[in-house]
Amino acid sequence: MRFMTTPDNTSDAPADASPEVTAVAAQDWARASADPQYRAAVVDLLGALAYGELAAFERLAEDAKLAPTLADKAELAKMASAEFHHYEKLKDRLTEIGEEPTLAMEPFVAALDGFHKQTAPSDWLEGLVKAYVGDSIASDFYREVAARLDADTRELVLAVLDDTGHAGFAVEKVRAAIDAEPRVGGRLALWARRLMGEALSQSQRVVADRDALSTMLVGGVADGFDLAEVGRMFSRITEAHTKRMAALGLAA
Amino acid sequence: MRFMTTPDNTSDAPADASPEVTAVAAQDWARASADPQYRAAVVDLLGALAYGELAAFERLAEDAKLAPTLADKAELAKMASAEFHHYEKLKDRLTEIGEEPTLAMEPFVAALDGFHKQTAPSDWLEGLVKAYVGDSIASDFYREVAARLDADTRELVLAVLDDTGHAGFAVEKVRAAIDAEPRVGGRLALWARRLMGEALSQSQRVVADRDALSTMLVGGVADGFDLAEVGRMFSRITEAHTKRMAALGLAA
Repeated sequence: MRFMTTPDNTSDAPADASPEVTAVAAQDWARASADPQYRAAVVDLLGALAYGELAAFERLAEDAKLAPTLADKAELAKMASAEFHHYEKLKDRLTEIGEEPTLAMEPFVAALDGFHKQTAPSDWLEGLVKAYVGDSIASDFYREVAARLDADTRELVLAVLDDTGHAGFAVEKVRAAIDAEPRVGGRLALWARRLMGEALSQSQRVVADRDALSTMLVGGVADGFDLAEVGRMFSRITEAHTKRMAALGLAA
Repeated sequence: MRFMTTPDNTSDAPADASPEVTAVAAQDWARASADPQYRAAVVDLLGALAYGELAAFERLAEDAKLAPTLADKAELAKMASAEFHHYEKLKDRLTEIGEEPTLAMEPFVAALDGFHKQTAPSDWLEGLVKAYVGDSIASDFYREVAARLDADTRELVLAVLDDTGHAGFAVEKVRAAIDAEPRVGGRLALWARRLMGEALSQSQRVVADRDALSTMLVGGVADGFDLAEVGRMFSRITEAHTKRMAALGLAA
């Protein structure tokens, strides 16, 4: 009688493969989405990312008005257009899995609009720092979350993560401005801190509201919810932000 | 002794081919651009169109903020992104023929910014009417001018003319709004008239400022400048506008 001696009797998989059985990362969408909680979390994630891209499009296009030269304006318009194409990919994916994109985005409109409303740049340099900080935080977040996704969703998220060119352009312009007028650095450092604070406060609002999404973010549905892990993720993203700001010549 | 008997001694072309020799439309860019006045006119045209597309991108993105629903917002963002890709084609062409896109656009910034400043829509419907009217006038103008261009430039201009989807979307939404509230029609008719008036006034500013471009617009460099023909072109565009407004339920 084999009684609680090996895991064989609780699963079809060989005993040494048990992480592959539970790990969503090794599954495709068809298999992973059979779990309704996982499915709900991915719909939330795609909706949040889609509205994030649409809002980013709108803000970059708006900030293009602050551009000091035509070439700078065109550069920001190009980034905005890239964000729009990311939005389209996410929207198409939602449609493909039978979800209404608008409904999936709605729950995240208030938090993202709130973020942008609280952080409207007052000049061109603040706009560039915001584009850079926003893009970097979004990339960090995408990478954190990608590891917890099924293979099909992960591929999409990594494709959307594809560099929109914010970083290089913004860093170069901001550095030149600080070199020319070192006092600008103090003002932009304060601004970057405000951006991060507002991003964290709006994220916490989303985490509190959307159970399925939060559960997935902190270690996958199968592994259960761990509030401490949410904190650790936020703190990894904040640390990366601090390092980037220092590299830019801004004490964060 | 052959003295002034045939045109053979003034040109390599056969005598009966003289329209093909002078008509720019039958030439490619390499040949047509050998005429410095024609070249200057095309650089002006591409610069004006490029900045027109960039400004249209910016305004559509701005108007997306007035959208009553997320789906409407996404639709306007899509149009804005299409305008940006038109801008890119025009900019790439300027670079290809050895011109600095920014310098080519500069002369048209004041007129186009002036137009948009004088015609900032105060609500979503005004924004839609503006997108529709602006897109239609631009298409009419592109078509007028395409006939006077060398084959290579014509191909580019017609590609950029490619429908951005404004017309169908705007017409449908504006019609529905007038059906629901007929008094809206009166207000929008006034608005459309103001748009056309402002467009004409800014165009005349450009015509007065840019000799080479104006000369080409009215019948090709080779055929000389004819001010009456400028008037006829404006009047054809105005008539087409009036018909479109009537079809939309707006007395123009």
